[in-house]
Amino acid sequence: MTGGARTSPVERRLLAAAVRLFAEHGFDGVSVQQIVEAAQVTKGGLYHYFDSKQDLLHEIYRSLIGRQLADLERILAAGLDPAATVRAVIRELVTSTAEHIDEAQVFAREMHRLDPDRLAAVRADRRRYHVAFREVVERGQREGVFAKVAPAETVTLVVFGMVNEMPRWYRADGRKPAAAFAEEVADLILAGLRPS
Amino acid sequence: MTGGARTSPVERRLLAAAVRLFAEHGFDGVSVQQIVEAAQVTKGGLYHYFDSKQDLLHEIYRSLIGRQLADLERILAAGLDPAATVRAVIRELVTSTAEHIDEAQVFAREMHRLDPDRLAAVRADRRRYHVAFREVVERGQREGVFAKVAPAETVTLVVFGMVNEMPRWYRADGRKPAAAFAEEVADLILAGLRPS
Repeated sequence: MTGGARTSPVERRLLAAAVRLFAEHGFDGVSVQQIVEAAQVTKGGLYHYFDSKQDLLHEIYRSLIGRQLADLERILAAGLDPAATVRAVIRELVTSTAEHIDEAQVFAREMHRLDPDRLAAVRADRRRYHVAFREVVERGQREGVFAKVAPAETVTLVVFGMVNEMPRWYRADGRKPAAAFAEEVADLILAGLRPS
Repeated sequence: MTGGARTSPVERRLLAAAVRLFAEHGFDGVSVQQIVEAAQVTKGGLYHYFDSKQDLLHEIYRSLIGRQLADLERILAAGLDPAATVRAVIRELVTSTAEHIDEAQVFAREMHRLDPDRLAAVRADRRRYHVAFREVVERGQREGVFAKVAPAETVTLVVFGMVNEMPRWYRADGRKPAAAFAEEVADLILAGLRPS
């Protein structure tokens, strides 16, 4: 469920080819034949690992959210205070999204093409992340280290909006490294949450 | 360029049908024939007003950004202070996006399908809005009414990320009215920008 299992070279070649082709031509604009040719794999090879083109799309996302959920668990397990947790989560989300910006872009555009079961699984993963972040903000507000300037749900929607929009503007060769951008966003959000 | 011209009932029927069908089936999944049938217009009627399916997609966006740019001009012309301007822009963007959430969703998913010329025109419109907002934040930071907690560009990316992600979660029949959400976001951003 949370990624890490797709470790064979053939699977990795197929996923990399699919990401590149979907990013360039869209999910509908790419055939299974084009994917296997780009990956230099036979159709039999593809169907050994993946049920369908939909399955490839789902796996592109699972490998990304899987890594992100594992990092989230690690951050939460560290037992930092709410402000340090918020900063660590923003840093991790922004940098992992930047490192996998093609996957994030394909997913933002094509997520609605998943069948209902896969879409429900993806939404559940996103929801887990969303709720975990919101709970950190709620805890900070309850303990008085964060101001109740806005509901924790709204703070969460602002942070995830920023992350999910990164594929539209982030370029690996752009002027600002993702890590620096993450610190600036954390500074802004934590200043907004600072008790007056 | 900035909308307002598409006022005939036939054009409005065609645009409404195209938005609905694109939202449900995606741009590639909808034929011109399906659009004219849903709008109860002949193909000749469609081609009298629109060059192509691409032209319809472009017009869906132009009518939304056109309204938003006109509202922005009105807000800027009012000569409010930077904090009141930031609040007014966030309020306007959030509520107009909520009112046209299907158009915003189609656009978020299908914008990359526009041909290069139309895509360039759309990007220029978005850029105008982005730069105008960033300049308001820069002015506040220069005048000392906003803290330099983060670069104005980063503040702008956070605000527009939140707006552009609304199609993923906003529901007209949801628990929170868009206007209330807009005030909460403005409270958070302005608290973040408050000089300490």
